[in-house]
Amino acid sequence: MQWRREDLHVAVRDPAAASMNFLNEVAARFPDAVSLAAGRPYDGFYVADDIERYLQVFRDHLAGAGLSASAVDRTLLQYGRTNSIIGDLIARTLAVDEGIEVPAEAVMVTAGCQEAMIIALRGLCVGPEDVVLAVEPCYVGFTGAARILGIDVVPVPEADDGLDADAVLRVAREVRESGRRPRALYVVPNFANPSGVSMPTAVRRRLLEVAAEAELLILEDDPYGLFGLDDEPRPTLKALDREQSVIYLGSFAKSVFPGARVGFLVADQVVVDAAGRSSVLADELSTVKSMLTVNTSPIAQAVVGGVLVESEYSLRVANRSKTEFYRRNMRALLAALEQEFGDDPRISWNTPSGGFFAVVSVAFSADEAMVEVSARDYGVLWTPMGFFYGAGGGERAIRLSCSALEPPRIEEGVRRLGKFVRDRVS
Amino acid sequence: MQWRREDLHVAVRDPAAASMNFLNEVAARFPDAVSLAAGRPYDGFYVADDIERYLQVFRDHLAGAGLSASAVDRTLLQYGRTNSIIGDLIARTLAVDEGIEVPAEAVMVTAGCQEAMIIALRGLCVGPEDVVLAVEPCYVGFTGAARILGIDVVPVPEADDGLDADAVLRVAREVRESGRRPRALYVVPNFANPSGVSMPTAVRRRLLEVAAEAELLILEDDPYGLFGLDDEPRPTLKALDREQSVIYLGSFAKSVFPGARVGFLVADQVVVDAAGRSSVLADELSTVKSMLTVNTSPIAQAVVGGVLVESEYSLRVANRSKTEFYRRNMRALLAALEQEFGDDPRISWNTPSGGFFAVVSVAFSADEAMVEVSARDYGVLWTPMGFFYGAGGGERAIRLSCSALEPPRIEEGVRRLGKFVRDRVS
Repeated sequence: MQWRREDLHVAVRDPAAASMNFLNEVAARFPDAVSLAAGRPYDGFYVADDIERYLQVFRDHLAGAGLSASAVDRTLLQYGRTNSIIGDLIARTLAVDEGIEVPAEAVMVTAGCQEAMIIALRGLCVGPEDVVLAVEPCYVGFTGAARILGIDVVPVPEADDGLDADAVLRVAREVRESGRRPRALYVVPNFANPSGVSMPTAVRRRLLEVAAEAELLILEDDPYGLFGLDDEPRPTLKALDREQSVIYLGSFAKSVFPGARVGFLVADQVVVDAAGRSSVLADELSTVKSMLTVNTSPIAQAVVGGVLVESEYSLRVANRSKTEFYRRNMRALLAALEQEFGDDPRISWNTPSGGFFAVVSVAFSADEAMVEVSARDYGVLWTPMGFFYGAGGGERAIRLSCSALEPPRIEEGVRRLGKFVRDRVS
Repeated sequence: MQWRREDLHVAVRDPAAASMNFLNEVAARFPDAVSLAAGRPYDGFYVADDIERYLQVFRDHLAGAGLSASAVDRTLLQYGRTNSIIGDLIARTLAVDEGIEVPAEAVMVTAGCQEAMIIALRGLCVGPEDVVLAVEPCYVGFTGAARILGIDVVPVPEADDGLDADAVLRVAREVRESGRRPRALYVVPNFANPSGVSMPTAVRRRLLEVAAEAELLILEDDPYGLFGLDDEPRPTLKALDREQSVIYLGSFAKSVFPGARVGFLVADQVVVDAAGRSSVLADELSTVKSMLTVNTSPIAQAVVGGVLVESEYSLRVANRSKTEFYRRNMRALLAALEQEFGDDPRISWNTPSGGFFAVVSVAFSADEAMVEVSARDYGVLWTPMGFFYGAGGGERAIRLSCSALEPPRIEEGVRRLGKFVRDRVS
């Protein structure tokens, strides 16, 4: 049986996936190019022997909590609770690290943060009139998740301080006037991917007010929160949330390792049924989870659980060396940009206060054809910002990532980028 | 923020999940009841120490294939290929055990078979006119997956030999006449859940003809194929498939262990794009996978990979003791039913040739209220067959499972069931 590609669901042709495939393909063709495109964590942190140690720590933890040896075996290898076996450990960690106080029942462990997005979107969007808002430029995993479910994503333009409250209200109003319901707003308050932008605390507080006013739930995604350039407190929206307006989407991909494929969501909202019985939203969403992936691999959960136990419930403690590494990299990137472009008024860039990404504004159209030229003739790869917009935008900007390389390579990459950019604008 | 349950997506109120919750809740209230409802694998097979051994076997396998130590570390802990790191091992195992000859690129590893269903459904069903057919009574995970995506499932009544070819053609025609497109047919040819029914080889061949005639792709689910009562060959549809009409949905939950949450799909169909370029369907579906869960935990994949390597690519070999166990259990169940009901013309049951389930037909309505009576007053739990029908059916039948217990408990359960049933029909 042969199929025409057009006869498959539109999600198969996800433009973000096509873009990422394009970047991977260019990277494969020019293996000597420095990749300032790859946003993955640094390879050097990963030692497979750690898996066994963390598994053992978690098994000891269960035994210490009174489980028999066979109960431990079953916990790791048998079918288990849909929502998690480490929800209590995650709740404890959120309290220690983030001041987020939620009961363990409000935590659902997911097959990576990507599944958390799908589950939240599926639970909240009931019919074709339900849409979600997202700050744009937007992480492509979120728009891709919405595409899988056929949910429209309506962009809210990002501001220099992360969010323009008036823009949120205006977009929400326009959506309602068009007969649709805005159900939620997706934001990354800390060091967003792709822009690197963060919200000051005052903006976060204002966002919570606005969300309440516009009857929007907030989907807060926080994969990079541990990696600020300094130790300034950056309260999560969930920590500031007094009205249960926030669903927190958590990732362990950067703070533990990507291979666990363990993420989570925190949904402590109260749900009331027709008979007046109330439950917690995370519990209600367990049905969605059970029909997507049944439960998250307890083996993978156990590895993450071991990390949490070993660090005494602080990912900030567990990540000290990673945090130092990424700080050094971001400083190296920003210093190299200053060195390379500081005297050139035609080139500007933002100065993120942490995370993996920064954005350079250039005076030419930085599209896929330009990526190829850059890789082939200048030996440096980057990501067009246009990839992160739904319908136009970001044409003259590029995303640089500093997570996967060491400082000397970052500096070499920016030198090559300088030559490439100057050849375009002179 | 408080939500009304009616304002959440219908998937939250999945009737199958509600039914399973009901059974779990009854089981918790009557802990001394024998559960002939639980269809999970037997607990006794699971030893957590095995995880580390299998991980090591897989790491050695990678090292033996020439990967450096750091490449092995990255394979297990870093982001990786969307579709799999063990697709080659699975393809080899399918060739050894099932005579299924497909390239490794046709295999996608998923977060359990549940995700394989979601991915296949999402890829194939493009718009609201696209529906899938499923043999009814139907595994609730399949109907639940379709509900997540808003895809209608149209039932085809199960026959005593698994499938009535004319019924498939009739239902497909009716669907087309109603202006919709039947895209695929979901079947479990070996020892189906819930019915225990299997298709003779001739029926399988006829099904392939019928599917081609009706332009239906077949979604073949085969979680119990290793657990026949005898060693008779039962060719999978995929092994018989000459026209790439079959997507094979694979599970390791019973053959390895549920806690891995590793399943897979085999989709070797050719897909051609507008420019005439061809690819393999599993590759096209990788975009869907990437937006659901990015990739399947390579740690979990490594554990399963270790099992495949250690068994020299034969799950039939790796499962010899499990197969013996489940054979003994099914024989014990069937013998106990004969002992209990053999003289009673009002009670009948089927005699599955393997698997975990059998169905007893009774002369009264076996609904949730009856489950509660049975658990409370007779100390035995079972599953109403009505759970497995979309809109009526199975009211006077119950599913018995023999997978989670040892024979003496199965026999005790059937004795209790006998008393319960006779009290209803006399």
